[in-house]
Amino acid sequence: MISVQEALHKIREHCTVRPPVLLPLHESGGFVLAENIAAPTDSPHFNQSAMDGYAFSYDDWDGNSDLTVSGEVQAGNNYSEPLNPHSAVRIFTGAALPSGTDTVVIQENVLKKNGSICIKDSKIIKGSNVRLTGSQTRKGEIVFQEGHLLTPASVAYLAEFGIQKVSVYSKPVISIINTGKELLHQGEKREAGKIYESNSFGLRAALEQMHISPDSVEMADDDERAIEKAIRNRLRSDILILTGGVSVGDYDFVTSALEKCGVKLVFHKIRQKPGKPLYFGVLGQTLVFGLPGNPASALTCFYEYVSEAISCLTKKTYFKRIHLPLAESFSKKPGVAVFLKGKINGNTVSVLANQESYKLNSFASADCLIELDEAMDRINTGDLVRVLQI
Amino acid sequence: MISVQEALHKIREHCTVRPPVLLPLHESGGFVLAENIAAPTDSPHFNQSAMDGYAFSYDDWDGNSDLTVSGEVQAGNNYSEPLNPHSAVRIFTGAALPSGTDTVVIQENVLKKNGSICIKDSKIIKGSNVRLTGSQTRKGEIVFQEGHLLTPASVAYLAEFGIQKVSVYSKPVISIINTGKELLHQGEKREAGKIYESNSFGLRAALEQMHISPDSVEMADDDERAIEKAIRNRLRSDILILTGGVSVGDYDFVTSALEKCGVKLVFHKIRQKPGKPLYFGVLGQTLVFGLPGNPASALTCFYEYVSEAISCLTKKTYFKRIHLPLAESFSKKPGVAVFLKGKINGNTVSVLANQESYKLNSFASADCLIELDEAMDRINTGDLVRVLQI
Repeated sequence: MISVQEALHKIREHCTVRPPVLLPLHESGGFVLAENIAAPTDSPHFNQSAMDGYAFSYDDWDGNSDLTVSGEVQAGNNYSEPLNPHSAVRIFTGAALPSGTDTVVIQENVLKKNGSICIKDSKIIKGSNVRLTGSQTRKGEIVFQEGHLLTPASVAYLAEFGIQKVSVYSKPVISIINTGKELLHQGEKREAGKIYESNSFGLRAALEQMHISPDSVEMADDDERAIEKAIRNRLRSDILILTGGVSVGDYDFVTSALEKCGVKLVFHKIRQKPGKPLYFGVLGQTLVFGLPGNPASALTCFYEYVSEAISCLTKKTYFKRIHLPLAESFSKKPGVAVFLKGKINGNTVSVLANQESYKLNSFASADCLIELDEAMDRINTGDLVRVLQI
Repeated sequence: MISVQEALHKIREHCTVRPPVLLPLHESGGFVLAENIAAPTDSPHFNQSAMDGYAFSYDDWDGNSDLTVSGEVQAGNNYSEPLNPHSAVRIFTGAALPSGTDTVVIQENVLKKNGSICIKDSKIIKGSNVRLTGSQTRKGEIVFQEGHLLTPASVAYLAEFGIQKVSVYSKPVISIINTGKELLHQGEKREAGKIYESNSFGLRAALEQMHISPDSVEMADDDERAIEKAIRNRLRSDILILTGGVSVGDYDFVTSALEKCGVKLVFHKIRQKPGKPLYFGVLGQTLVFGLPGNPASALTCFYEYVSEAISCLTKKTYFKRIHLPLAESFSKKPGVAVFLKGKINGNTVSVLANQESYKLNSFASADCLIELDEAMDRINTGDLVRVLQI
């Protein structure tokens, strides 16, 4: 058995970043850039008024006299006439400053009189209310580096530059195989001793949270040959997730079937609760996770390990970790890491009831997993704990 | 001008929850239940072994003698033979307890001898390692109430009951119309005084974060007639988002065009920065937001107000609010609420540079908006601030 940290380290060691793909900018939100992007122009690419008002030349103005309003420029227009001395141009937010002007007085700070204005603004300085060319980004400067997450604001910013396509890391191909002789398909008649397959539902929904649709979801008959065949069919996935059959019971066929398919064991079993029997192996670039069959264990292992692998493949952090004070004290045995279903309440986090690995009723309402390290024993009220927001 | 709280209150007042829709369970993750769901069976619906081991009758055992192993039951099988006295049945995790047994000893705690076992477990009690029928949920009990968010664990839990369809609140129909004479379409030749339209890119990506695709995205020519026509075409949306043209400039046509289309003004202008000119109106059940044209203002107003309206329509919280200590002190003028682009660093939150409403470069890296209320002036290092995680 290894520690959580060793397990994560071994998973990361075996991850290869997914190949880049070129996407239209409007589809690129939520992906991670696979290239540096240099600014093709200054931003803004012309001197812009930040307000509705009047543009004028600060040095030409004596600080007192009225200025003749000699024209008007709307956003989107280009004012090309030469500027007369002692004059101003009516201007609107976003409009390009007429040549010769460098300062904007806002409309609320002028007195209008018969085609001229008197500026009533004691705080005005040269350049007031002007967004200077390149004041956000200079042409040629790196806007975003490879590895940058394309947040909505990032996508909007690239749109401002007229950039239409970006190279991003593509999504991984993920296959799910559920095993277990006790499993019924949805719609089948309930039978003594059998249960409806549910892990694929949780895993699919968790992948959809990450904006990833699994490539395939299937159920293998719980004998070694059938499991082996199902595995072989999916060994070209980036990530193959199996559920069930990874304990050491006499009928747990998954690990031996994986071995027969040539999957190299990397680790099996972690000092953690839930999810102790987690299996991880590789074949070429395919990462294979054998999750425990208990639904709460399977989902916990997904959030803690599979999503971490997907993060490595796509360079994206899907679920955020923060530190919050624990709302009530909690005790655990040292020597085993514990993941608890938790609920964030503003500025604290609470441990939910019903933490057993076969129960989903509290997990259903959880918005985080509280991650308690192996060495911890008692955590007092108010102590900071690490939580993974799910 | 009204306060942020008044604005939110007025928006919520005008929201009507979206009609329910029946979805296959595997597509329901991330939706909110529009019905109470009662458990169709007990969960578990039979007494189950929680471990690999041996099932026996606790009362029949004298606490000392060996028990004869009289058979075996795998998960998924049904052991129907009557149990002999002083005997045990080999059992595996998830298997139904044979009739007459009530306790499981785990395989690590027995000595096997010639077809019988000797229990070496001083802590065993009646019912050990058994998941009792109904111990998670009783038949008929409400599993989830209307309004429950279908997290991945929720979906898995409903699958366990064999539930195949659920009634959830449907997604809203959202239309986006961008206005501004200065706007160029992507791919158009750059022109003096003009800029590429970018707001639709940010808004679309923010909607996609919420797993919502806008129904339509278009750009209206910046004259009143064209804007009016575009608005009329989209008045059957649940939410109509306009960008630009909501200030009081001589060429800001949006508010008057909305009035001509019969949209009733609810509020215009909020004591906030950025996003002061935010417009909100309604026509029937259509909510109309006029966002400022500045991209950072538009996106901030989307996260703070439009997403709040979508939450009311779908009963789902899309972006979570938590409280974190501020990493460095910050001062603002009282009398205006401020939304700052922020970055969470484990257990604190920092204010990013470049907060100007025309800049997106820091917004691009932000993972939250720090919400500073109107009355606040100085916030000291370590003071808790409310953040909206985006």
